[in-house]
Amino acid sequence: MTPHPVQPLSPDAPQFSRVHDPRHPLTRPYVPQAAAFASGALTPRAFLEARIATLEADEPAIAAFVTLGLDAARSAADAASARWKAGQPLSPIDGMPIVVKDMIETADLPTQMNSPIFQGFDARRDAACVLALRQAGAVVVGKTVTTEFACGNSGPTRNPYDTSRTPGGSSSGSAAAVGAGMASLGLGTQTHGSTIRPAGYCGAYALKATHGALHVGGLAPLAPTLDHLGLIGASLEDVWAAAMAISVRIGGMPPHPGLVGPLEAPPAHRPTTLVRLDTLGWAETPASSQAAFEDAVARLARGGVRILDAGNDPATAALEATLRGINDYANDLLAWEARWPLSSYRAHGADQVGGRIHDLLARAGRLDAAGYASALKERARLRAMVADFVGRTDGFVMLASSGPAIRDHAFTGSRNFALPWTLVGAPAFALPLLVDEGMPLGVQVAGFADQDAAACGIAAWVRDTLLSTDA
Amino acid sequence: MTPHPVQPLSPDAPQFSRVHDPRHPLTRPYVPQAAAFASGALTPRAFLEARIATLEADEPAIAAFVTLGLDAARSAADAASARWKAGQPLSPIDGMPIVVKDMIETADLPTQMNSPIFQGFDARRDAACVLALRQAGAVVVGKTVTTEFACGNSGPTRNPYDTSRTPGGSSSGSAAAVGAGMASLGLGTQTHGSTIRPAGYCGAYALKATHGALHVGGLAPLAPTLDHLGLIGASLEDVWAAAMAISVRIGGMPPHPGLVGPLEAPPAHRPTTLVRLDTLGWAETPASSQAAFEDAVARLARGGVRILDAGNDPATAALEATLRGINDYANDLLAWEARWPLSSYRAHGADQVGGRIHDLLARAGRLDAAGYASALKERARLRAMVADFVGRTDGFVMLASSGPAIRDHAFTGSRNFALPWTLVGAPAFALPLLVDEGMPLGVQVAGFADQDAAACGIAAWVRDTLLSTDA
Repeated sequence: MTPHPVQPLSPDAPQFSRVHDPRHPLTRPYVPQAAAFASGALTPRAFLEARIATLEADEPAIAAFVTLGLDAARSAADAASARWKAGQPLSPIDGMPIVVKDMIETADLPTQMNSPIFQGFDARRDAACVLALRQAGAVVVGKTVTTEFACGNSGPTRNPYDTSRTPGGSSSGSAAAVGAGMASLGLGTQTHGSTIRPAGYCGAYALKATHGALHVGGLAPLAPTLDHLGLIGASLEDVWAAAMAISVRIGGMPPHPGLVGPLEAPPAHRPTTLVRLDTLGWAETPASSQAAFEDAVARLARGGVRILDAGNDPATAALEATLRGINDYANDLLAWEARWPLSSYRAHGADQVGGRIHDLLARAGRLDAAGYASALKERARLRAMVADFVGRTDGFVMLASSGPAIRDHAFTGSRNFALPWTLVGAPAFALPLLVDEGMPLGVQVAGFADQDAAACGIAAWVRDTLLSTDA
Repeated sequence: MTPHPVQPLSPDAPQFSRVHDPRHPLTRPYVPQAAAFASGALTPRAFLEARIATLEADEPAIAAFVTLGLDAARSAADAASARWKAGQPLSPIDGMPIVVKDMIETADLPTQMNSPIFQGFDARRDAACVLALRQAGAVVVGKTVTTEFACGNSGPTRNPYDTSRTPGGSSSGSAAAVGAGMASLGLGTQTHGSTIRPAGYCGAYALKATHGALHVGGLAPLAPTLDHLGLIGASLEDVWAAAMAISVRIGGMPPHPGLVGPLEAPPAHRPTTLVRLDTLGWAETPASSQAAFEDAVARLARGGVRILDAGNDPATAALEATLRGINDYANDLLAWEARWPLSSYRAHGADQVGGRIHDLLARAGRLDAAGYASALKERARLRAMVADFVGRTDGFVMLASSGPAIRDHAFTGSRNFALPWTLVGAPAFALPLLVDEGMPLGVQVAGFADQDAAACGIAAWVRDTLLSTDA
């Protein structure tokens, strides 16, 4: 149970690249193994040992972890194995190996936020999501690398498909660990684009549920009206079952009563209509990634879905125009809301926080309450615009990022595809179903606020359609 | 700067009782001394030394503190003295001695929440309110006793007017320290009745501002839609200036942009109409306290205010009827919203938390999301009912507690007078202007949401009228 400190990646760390195949990914789903756990053909402990073997092989090159808790994980997996054997699992995720972004409190491992200020910090409690997942039987493997306070300096983590590329951020380590098959679920956070983008970069699925529908207690606060819990998983079934395991045990962030839906992922549901969005990200997306997305949209259309876009639908054109203007006020919202806690961290000394945090505080200093209120009004206008699509479309489809993971370790990539649904506050799924430059490229399926289960059913249909070998 | 641990009150601690005189209270206002600081007739350091002398004399009997930071306080007071001397105070509260409830994070003193789980806990940051007050020049004297996690076991603190009585809770130490004159301001919290009631019991003023108007970042969360920052002060001028010092530096809890008003307390303003409320608390109030309140209301009426009450106004009668039914759903809201973090604390072991916390978790276990949603609906109905009084009255007046502090050290007193405006989420002031059994008895002046400055002006008029020696 002693935390195992992991060193920063050394300059002579091993390097590799691997080609992403959406039909044979590196990820290792857990919930779909339920029949094997029930029959005894597989035990949660054996499943965990395979994840640990992957971890031991890849971690020197990927550096996903800050601390490991393998002894405790093995004990917890044994307990889960005994429950499945007795025919009494606690939940569909009983025994699931999970990893936890180091912005999220754990009672048994330090929570260090990639900051010298929080070196060895013991929060003495589990975050709401961690507590609920443990109550459902989940097995905590370790804490994963975050960018500094989820908005500052990058960490050492490398992309599991190509170590010369970023895993994305700020949930860098959770996305890399799940993408590499070291765990079936990674807890993350999303305040601008910190879950959807790294999941797509690392070949993992993800859910950013309706704002407030999953409790954020024990996540280090950054910007309360933007902060979401992010679930990065080996499959849609894993992220949905984990989300519901949290909701039924601890609910939403008050006053939100919590995510509503079946305990296991709803069946695939073909939408009648989808709105295709290009956002500000399209212009920065490589032609090869654009082509992969165009092909995917064409396949969805051939599957029987009517596609609305800026070319054939004036309301979509108006939404696209609005989405091109969100960055300024999104940065204002983040800077203003994050004044605390960021200013309390900077009070430890100007050299104790990174440049991006100084920049955010400087931006906040140029704002006043009226400027903040005006940014809130802009966001409310966007939300109303999206709500007006209810009845006109079943959902929205766009990329999860403007191309595959970039070759950079200081910048974790553009947020232009993830930011829109963060602001909308409605559900968004990342699906690692496309390939460009041999790397995973995520499709994003987004829905309406508090209609997360419906969006999940559509995401499942999109997945099935894009994985199908039929033309 | 080394924290000074304070022992629990010993059984042979000194005992005393003193008679409350609202015109000559024990409290020591700071902001009204501005002219003396500016002229050099008094320095913040000398003001602090007088507070420390009081503290050293009374603390053995009152036990308000958990930790003291007197060396740091003296240095901070010297810096403030130099600024006043140079004619450049940082704010109207520059140099004000403040104390901080031990539920509120401080970077330099531990935050222990009256729980063995958080013994010696170092939060490594200042709460938003503490950071803002320090930026405004406030001087932190120490951390004050709270009930366990602001909802559980009582602490050792005694009432500064009679050590056989409770100081109230959960902001026990902040109310006692300010009431005794050990500091001019005490930070507290109010989730049901934890600021208004102890302030009235201890002879202090208090403000519980509109919900969200003052940032609660770094207050240990309990029930997010009920949690308020509480300001307990030596005068209305102290609590208002402190509230604004927080608001202009760190604002409200997002998405609330923050408390709006002048930097110093608005002038006294005679209302045209006040609604007098008896609430569920009247029936449990001693006849002598009832008589003191009746006399106060009669004086306000003689001062030229029209008083609406359940006897002469059907809408007030309907509001009173509604207020008689709030306790059940208020307890449901608290229990449901506090599941986390209370369940994460109980996970340390059943014997690590007190009986009241077990009770709250048991109550939460009997609720579901639908029950919670129904409680939210009841509260929304109450809020709408109060909002309907806009234009019909300028404010509301009631007791701050059902009588003076009770002779009990396990129970901190009834919340029946404080709970209504907690639920309404609108501003409420406690004014220690009445006397019963020789003890302070608080009058509560309450207003409309986001009209805090208007309510403060009315509270000032009520104070001036009740302190006036004219009949």
